[in-house]
Amino acid sequence: MPVNYRTPSPEQLFPVAGVRLGVAEAGIRKLARNDLTLVSLAANARVAGVFTTNRFCAAPVVVCRRHLELGSDIRALVINTGVANAGTGEQGRQAAEQSCAAVGELLGIADRQVLPFSTGVILEPLPVDRLVAGLPSCVADLQADHWHAAAHAIMTTDTVAKAASRRLEVNGRTVTITGISKGAGMIRPNMATMLALIATDAGIATPLLQELLHAAAEASFNCISVDGDTSTNDSFVLIATGQAGVEFTAAAEPGYTALREAVIAVAVELAQAIIRDGEGASKFITIAVEGGRNRDECKRIGYAIAHSPLVKTAFFASDPNLGRILAAIGYADVDDLDVERLSVSLNSAGTEILVAEKGGRAASYREEDGAAIMQQAEIGVRVSLGRGVAKATVYTCDLSYDYVQINADYRS
Amino acid sequence: MPVNYRTPSPEQLFPVAGVRLGVAEAGIRKLARNDLTLVSLAANARVAGVFTTNRFCAAPVVVCRRHLELGSDIRALVINTGVANAGTGEQGRQAAEQSCAAVGELLGIADRQVLPFSTGVILEPLPVDRLVAGLPSCVADLQADHWHAAAHAIMTTDTVAKAASRRLEVNGRTVTITGISKGAGMIRPNMATMLALIATDAGIATPLLQELLHAAAEASFNCISVDGDTSTNDSFVLIATGQAGVEFTAAAEPGYTALREAVIAVAVELAQAIIRDGEGASKFITIAVEGGRNRDECKRIGYAIAHSPLVKTAFFASDPNLGRILAAIGYADVDDLDVERLSVSLNSAGTEILVAEKGGRAASYREEDGAAIMQQAEIGVRVSLGRGVAKATVYTCDLSYDYVQINADYRS
Repeated sequence: MPVNYRTPSPEQLFPVAGVRLGVAEAGIRKLARNDLTLVSLAANARVAGVFTTNRFCAAPVVVCRRHLELGSDIRALVINTGVANAGTGEQGRQAAEQSCAAVGELLGIADRQVLPFSTGVILEPLPVDRLVAGLPSCVADLQADHWHAAAHAIMTTDTVAKAASRRLEVNGRTVTITGISKGAGMIRPNMATMLALIATDAGIATPLLQELLHAAAEASFNCISVDGDTSTNDSFVLIATGQAGVEFTAAAEPGYTALREAVIAVAVELAQAIIRDGEGASKFITIAVEGGRNRDECKRIGYAIAHSPLVKTAFFASDPNLGRILAAIGYADVDDLDVERLSVSLNSAGTEILVAEKGGRAASYREEDGAAIMQQAEIGVRVSLGRGVAKATVYTCDLSYDYVQINADYRS
Repeated sequence: MPVNYRTPSPEQLFPVAGVRLGVAEAGIRKLARNDLTLVSLAANARVAGVFTTNRFCAAPVVVCRRHLELGSDIRALVINTGVANAGTGEQGRQAAEQSCAAVGELLGIADRQVLPFSTGVILEPLPVDRLVAGLPSCVADLQADHWHAAAHAIMTTDTVAKAASRRLEVNGRTVTITGISKGAGMIRPNMATMLALIATDAGIATPLLQELLHAAAEASFNCISVDGDTSTNDSFVLIATGQAGVEFTAAAEPGYTALREAVIAVAVELAQAIIRDGEGASKFITIAVEGGRNRDECKRIGYAIAHSPLVKTAFFASDPNLGRILAAIGYADVDDLDVERLSVSLNSAGTEILVAEKGGRAASYREEDGAAIMQQAEIGVRVSLGRGVAKATVYTCDLSYDYVQINADYRS
């Protein structure tokens, strides 16, 4: 059960002019489920992507990077779930390339205009024959209003499909932004998350699209962690089809800031949905670190707290065993951190309580106040370092029996 | 239930001339258990210690460091369990100092000759009055053969007491080495573990003792991880009483190498015992990384595997979902790691199977072979990086329901 998250209905996911999606049952790893998704883009769309920093990156990530280097005029995305096509060596790269070639042939576009994505089990070969055999059904299913179906077809251990959509007026035109994401475990993206795809019908020139992609990733997918495991397949793709009648080439142009903020908001919503549906999650935790010398040290402390199994189990147990947070701050590898100057507080639903200051428990802290906040499903941790003005926010979830159960059983 | 570990019997723990130990029920946090330990050292003993790198280090760690800077002629150690006296600010430091003063008065030694240690819950005040009130019982209980009782009195979430002892002939004299350790969670020492104490009746001059301390820590407590949480209280102390009639001042002296190796072996045994009794552990896992450019990158990869919740749950489930190991290697932050050159194998009880090479699954790998090894209680993972001659070994355990249960319930 995700924490305060429900998949938007099909009607709440607005079509993006120039984007059509189709799904199919290809039997990649399990039968009787949609596991193959094709996204077809109109000519003149511009596409940008960021990918995992994992050295064991998946074969489709290698192919995506190469195809994007050859040009941003991408015309199709092909996404399978079930098998990650990672740790599959030369054979895996060939499989990813065969997928692109098959899509290219069906749609009459060049192989390099296709981006392949895979998600699922690592180290198992991708049954590319089954994938290719499923493609004609995807093509037959292509529709502008199939975002909802696509959000479901890309799921692995996700318990709910994740999607977000909004419309806004930009320079007198209605602009739409719709996105989907998947991921619940092996989540500690470093550049992008497992798989997220956001499209807008605004036109955005490639350099500006790149900048927006990185800004959106940094504010969203690069701020979340379920288990600290950076995946081999993390991919985040941003598409601008240019069919809404507004076109941007520079950040200073009127209307761009509103569009930029809306795209980032969709990315944050999709990233938070991954945490809300984190494997076994029963709590959604926002860790805000402020007063740092730079953003990097704030993130390091945020992630140290987010990754501590002891902190995560304390949240699961609603136990205000808050010394574990101090311990995590202390080992976050921030040089010269003066624990006498930092403070830690907890908050939920508008109530904030000071837990620690001057290197110890705050005089005003009462265990029952801490316990009351720890009972909530949405909890904030605020750490003030008292040594600068930088800040960062990290989103995470608790560690429960269900996390162990899900990951002990994942392949069975 | 620890993995293949049983506490040595009292008779298997040889007394160390010049060391006496006494325990008592001080009621620090729970009633009806020994929670206070006093170790009394004869004059002329030499003591060296290494401590946590956690910035939120506990008050007793601060006091230990200061007292050791003032001289290695330590005469007593006082250890309480139940409360860690960490995250306790100025009041915590006063409590640690009061403990030393009370011991000093009872034993007729200077405060600075006492080292204090605390283990237990962070952020709670140490009830120093109860600790001081328990000290006379400890003094009355002081005996050379109380190692077994002391090993039990320092436990927190440990399910078994940890101790190791051996005797060897050095230069015609019988030399004894006996040690105890505790720790089961918040275990990812960086300099030393939660609490370990090794004493020998050999004489070792202070500079040589320091070198041996660091070598032993690096080979043992700095190579283990249960959950990646570096504690606020990690402490490892090495004592040389000099009462066996052999004395060393330089490493090149005859007989020293044998003594050095025996001390390191005791440290490794104590460190492995902590992992075998890791919270919820059902598997003992040895991760050997070799062929690296330097030891640091080998350790980084070893710890990335050891800390991955996904790898740990796969071991718990006996599931050869070994792509998770590749993913962990890939995000271990080793620059320019060429995954085409590395190989990964699994081993247990003399059988070794190649899992991955050339960036993918080994052609010879069969799932049933992987499954057979994953069923074992003692499993080795060997990673060959193929880029140098450095190596490192990391010991860890799996992540089970019981880990979550223990840490969700710890304070209750």
